[in-house]
Amino acid sequence: MVKIMAEKKHKKETKAKEKVSPKQIAERIKKSAEIMVKQIEKQEDPEFTTMQRGKSNVVWDEKKGYLALGDKEIKRTFLNIAHARKFMQTTLIMQKTQDYLLNNKTASIREIYYELKHTIKGTKENTFEGQDESDPIIVDLEHSVDTIREKLNLHANPKGTLYGNITLKDKMHNNDKFNASKLGRGGWSIMSRIEPEEIELLETDAEYLLVCETEAMFERLIEEGYPKPNKCLLIGTGGQAARGARRLIHRIHEELDLPVYVFTDGDPYGWYIYSVIKQGSMALAAHSEFMSVPDAKYIGMTLDDVKNYELENVTEHMKEGDVKRAKEMMAYPWFQNKEWQDQLKKAITQKIRIEQQALANKKLDFVATHYLPEKIRNNEFLP
Amino acid sequence: MVKIMAEKKHKKETKAKEKVSPKQIAERIKKSAEIMVKQIEKQEDPEFTTMQRGKSNVVWDEKKGYLALGDKEIKRTFLNIAHARKFMQTTLIMQKTQDYLLNNKTASIREIYYELKHTIKGTKENTFEGQDESDPIIVDLEHSVDTIREKLNLHANPKGTLYGNITLKDKMHNNDKFNASKLGRGGWSIMSRIEPEEIELLETDAEYLLVCETEAMFERLIEEGYPKPNKCLLIGTGGQAARGARRLIHRIHEELDLPVYVFTDGDPYGWYIYSVIKQGSMALAAHSEFMSVPDAKYIGMTLDDVKNYELENVTEHMKEGDVKRAKEMMAYPWFQNKEWQDQLKKAITQKIRIEQQALANKKLDFVATHYLPEKIRNNEFLP
Repeated sequence: MVKIMAEKKHKKETKAKEKVSPKQIAERIKKSAEIMVKQIEKQEDPEFTTMQRGKSNVVWDEKKGYLALGDKEIKRTFLNIAHARKFMQTTLIMQKTQDYLLNNKTASIREIYYELKHTIKGTKENTFEGQDESDPIIVDLEHSVDTIREKLNLHANPKGTLYGNITLKDKMHNNDKFNASKLGRGGWSIMSRIEPEEIELLETDAEYLLVCETEAMFERLIEEGYPKPNKCLLIGTGGQAARGARRLIHRIHEELDLPVYVFTDGDPYGWYIYSVIKQGSMALAAHSEFMSVPDAKYIGMTLDDVKNYELENVTEHMKEGDVKRAKEMMAYPWFQNKEWQDQLKKAITQKIRIEQQALANKKLDFVATHYLPEKIRNNEFLP
Repeated sequence: MVKIMAEKKHKKETKAKEKVSPKQIAERIKKSAEIMVKQIEKQEDPEFTTMQRGKSNVVWDEKKGYLALGDKEIKRTFLNIAHARKFMQTTLIMQKTQDYLLNNKTASIREIYYELKHTIKGTKENTFEGQDESDPIIVDLEHSVDTIREKLNLHANPKGTLYGNITLKDKMHNNDKFNASKLGRGGWSIMSRIEPEEIELLETDAEYLLVCETEAMFERLIEEGYPKPNKCLLIGTGGQAARGARRLIHRIHEELDLPVYVFTDGDPYGWYIYSVIKQGSMALAAHSEFMSVPDAKYIGMTLDDVKNYELENVTEHMKEGDVKRAKEMMAYPWFQNKEWQDQLKKAITQKIRIEQQALANKKLDFVATHYLPEKIRNNEFLP
């Protein structure tokens, strides 16, 4: 009972964080800046607080089912010589992102770096020497105002494609409404930022979302006409899912209440892609609540498929790097269950991998007519 | 006069090649196979003819304005031990692609590899050991039946995005009609195969096509509302343009008669991306007539932009690999003009590069309000 209540409270908090408006975020930045100004007026050393990052402050939150950031904070002060440059950079990023938020502008993290780079008047010092200086400051600010980069109107490159009977609305673009099953076989190119105040998910008759690692499998399933009769939405991530794709997967699950099935190559890299969609990643542990889908299930490929579907002839050898990755993954707390330990052990001992597209060895349409429908009918998922 | 007539004849030939139907290609494959069968029946050694590839058979066709394949042929015969395995593989690929063509199926080059891989009955020999065995056979077949992979219903991975007021129709998908300016800011995900018998370009009010190297610049121009008032279509290639994107650029130019302006980073890699769109590449020299746009113009970035737009502060150092690439490019026949020799020399001596996104240093919207409109108004292009 207590557990359920705690879960409910957490869901409510996440929803509130999700719904925070650009104005509210701008307000938080302003407050943080006002505190600094007051400190300066009082001739105190101005301070900026953010969260500590890196492995030492990443926790596996078993209850929530995802990786999260711990509660270790770090303070940065202007009069500390080791902090002064970063402090200056932080205030620049604060000022600029507030500007974006108040003027409905968005920018890529490369653009904000270029926009802010200049030589400080009367010195030979540049504000930033490279994007490797501005990127971590953006993360500092995300944590400091308790939000994600997307809600600071920043983004990285887009990647990934959506297909299926779902109607979206882009409120920032003439309120365009479009259905992702009516754009030919190409599908909709997922934007780098998929925030609810801009992109609305209007309606769908789909019963689940299938996430595919390869764009080629995404195209295969469209060619086979899989989505319509199976009432499914498709997202092709093209390898590791980009932030925009992860946000969309998360939102489809949360807002439309659709189960998420992940379909990757049967190798440690594919399984890792799955685990990032499900439980988040070390690097973005702070943002799991916006991006992860702890309820996601794994549909394939597994090394058991090799025998079950007689694919012995079309396995590939695993490279040493993959074996090493599998060994590391065996130790991750979120792979501590019989099913995954089993898969990883098989990978390490058999040293084979099996690609999604190897199913073409049966027949091109086998994946659509047999593999996926059977797995779903028999509830044959890995956790 | 003779030159103009020769050009017209060439255009006509290309159009005919463009319009060839799946059935016609299947027929060509069949004919080639029938010749083999007759040879076998006469107890002769069956033969397969294709074009020689590689640098020694690539020519720079100055009149046509693109790289082309020369006329050196190679013959493969079954009874030559060095050819026997490849011969067997060729007939497998011929049979399978004909099958695709007659049944309206398409497949990725990875899928056809998997579909055909098996152990030959009564032996321990596999038909293919890896995709590196099937890919070159596909190219052999393309040349042998004088077409492109796409018209064999094969494709590689999709990449690239289309935005702007153009209506497309997908004849293979419920005759979907959609306008690429009404899909929100995400745009349409360009398919891996953009063949006229499947995807029709219906109408547009655009006056030119702007091709952007980075997806981030593509997003910037959409956010700034650039395409509509400037009557322009946008394609973001995300680096080197994929075959589908190149086909679409080529077709928009040929069928809709729109000028093509290419906008890349100001560095040898970006300029090479431009030259592949314009004149084709060594590797795909045989397909230039389907993919190249010899009339394309280069809008930026140039190293002269650095001074003209006061971007000295936001250049990047060029890596040694880029310097080496620039030196190689100086020797290419299609860079033998004053403007490009000038740029390449500057790159080599100044060792700087300038990114598209560096324009954000002026202001985020500078590219849309000043840079592009001024260049177009003043006709400031490189050839």
